[in-house]
Amino acid sequence: MRVALDAMGGDKAPEVNLQGARDAYRELGIEVMLVGKPEVVGPQEGIQEGVQAVHASQVIEMHDHPAAAVRSKRDSSIVVGLRLVKDGRADAFVSAGNSGAVMAAALLVLGRPPGIDRPAIGTVIPTLEGRTLMLDAGANADVRPHQLLQFAQMGSAYVSALSDTKAATIGLLSNGEEETKGNALTLEAHALLKASGLNFIGNVEGRDILRGTADVVVTDGFTGNIALKSIEGTAELLQQVLRQEVTRGLRNKLAARALRPAFRRVAARLDYSEVGGAPLLGVNGPVFISHGRSNANAIKNALRVASEAATHDMVGAISKAVPPD
Amino acid sequence: MRVALDAMGGDKAPEVNLQGARDAYRELGIEVMLVGKPEVVGPQEGIQEGVQAVHASQVIEMHDHPAAAVRSKRDSSIVVGLRLVKDGRADAFVSAGNSGAVMAAALLVLGRPPGIDRPAIGTVIPTLEGRTLMLDAGANADVRPHQLLQFAQMGSAYVSALSDTKAATIGLLSNGEEETKGNALTLEAHALLKASGLNFIGNVEGRDILRGTADVVVTDGFTGNIALKSIEGTAELLQQVLRQEVTRGLRNKLAARALRPAFRRVAARLDYSEVGGAPLLGVNGPVFISHGRSNANAIKNALRVASEAATHDMVGAISKAVPPD
Repeated sequence: MRVALDAMGGDKAPEVNLQGARDAYRELGIEVMLVGKPEVVGPQEGIQEGVQAVHASQVIEMHDHPAAAVRSKRDSSIVVGLRLVKDGRADAFVSAGNSGAVMAAALLVLGRPPGIDRPAIGTVIPTLEGRTLMLDAGANADVRPHQLLQFAQMGSAYVSALSDTKAATIGLLSNGEEETKGNALTLEAHALLKASGLNFIGNVEGRDILRGTADVVVTDGFTGNIALKSIEGTAELLQQVLRQEVTRGLRNKLAARALRPAFRRVAARLDYSEVGGAPLLGVNGPVFISHGRSNANAIKNALRVASEAATHDMVGAISKAVPPD
Repeated sequence: MRVALDAMGGDKAPEVNLQGARDAYRELGIEVMLVGKPEVVGPQEGIQEGVQAVHASQVIEMHDHPAAAVRSKRDSSIVVGLRLVKDGRADAFVSAGNSGAVMAAALLVLGRPPGIDRPAIGTVIPTLEGRTLMLDAGANADVRPHQLLQFAQMGSAYVSALSDTKAATIGLLSNGEEETKGNALTLEAHALLKASGLNFIGNVEGRDILRGTADVVVTDGFTGNIALKSIEGTAELLQQVLRQEVTRGLRNKLAARALRPAFRRVAARLDYSEVGGAPLLGVNGPVFISHGRSNANAIKNALRVASEAATHDMVGAISKAVPPD
């Protein structure tokens, strides 16, 4: 199994990318093709300790306009990395860079399976009980009801392919559990999902995402982004307020020190860096987008999940799940 | 100042409603007209300790269809309470009941000021620095760009009328800070807000809501509901996980006991029951919707804010802020 990794993408690139690649080989036996500038990835001279350098002279920055950057930077690490998948030299691709550009480049280089309107970004969210896949998490701000159905079909196929879940439960993110709640988009999508043959459990609410009420939560990319950032923002803020309050005064500080392992377990139970990147569903190849703030552990886990997705033929499963029109 | 209170609405009604009414009079000098079934509110025999009973023979339940219930239950506590405002017998109305029914009844009984398309529910969210008003928080699942502009005008007028904020900052909830980020609705609304003369600070993200980045966060009711419930769900879940982890073992339990005052301060800093109910903006009278899970403190604070809104002529300020077409 060989996974191509964008060495240039992410806030802490390239250090954490290089470290994540080395760890993925050492701990998991995954060979990594490290794609980036020569001065970052080193000379192209075969595999060394499981890592092979592939040169790309350009970098798509976070602030670049995705589609324009993909067209003008044909030798960027994102485009070159995806071409390795296209050419069969790599089995999957991982980037912590500009997610819009990864999606645009994946569409251009890999294309879509027949019948799929729009790829979607699926974010894996750690919940109380396990994990929830929410899609779309930002790729498509405006969607139509049948596209939400496709997201559900793709999400169900992905979760089933990568886990032991036979028929993943699907929830439609809405402003109320009742079937009558929703906006024009979700009311129509609800009817399509009910008739789809998927394991549709109905509408779910914002509070259900972290509870793990459904294996897959389906929504448009605008709403998905806002739900995700509301969750992240609340968790960050609560941690900040908690830290302020429990470190007021020596007595508190001592008690807080005693509780440090407990606080660490709380953080670990909701640690995004364990979940391993967001799958881009609906393109002809396993592509994973890591959080911009990824550390080496997040990169390693993204490489792990990307390799699992290739092993379990994620693309084949998704193609089969969405009827070709 | 006299505020009508729905005695029947809310998960813990009528006990917390009665207690909240008594506390509002005793602590704040607010006279309360307690509207509900005779066996709950007692005989209609004038004011006793600042509380006056007003009979309403019907109750709109949480699961009732709002518009239908308002038409068929003309003697419900919600309709009767709003009629007290209409007739000038009460200065404001508070209910912790079916929020859709409160909105439908307010439209029917009180009507809208000229020029206002749709009323909006404004939720007051405790933030790190103070408070943020988010609207719409659930009344209108599908809106048009000029309605988002009206929400901004109403929210700005409300915040300015009730606080010392001269020109409240307005943020548009979107999937990215950049002006180019958004869906079709928010992209168009962004342009309207930029040209509006309001103190518009641009797009804000889900994580900005709790940070207090803007005094007023504008969104449609579908997205607002999902953001709100994502925030609430995350806060609840983190508290639950934290409680589990810090009470594992005797040593942890002792340390956690020492930190109890700190944990309480964290909860107090983000306590919704202090903020006092959600204003219904865009009807001809001060109307406030309390959380269904309101305790007596939440009811008391809703009565307080409702009385302040009447004192500061919330309705006049909002009418002036939205041009009559």
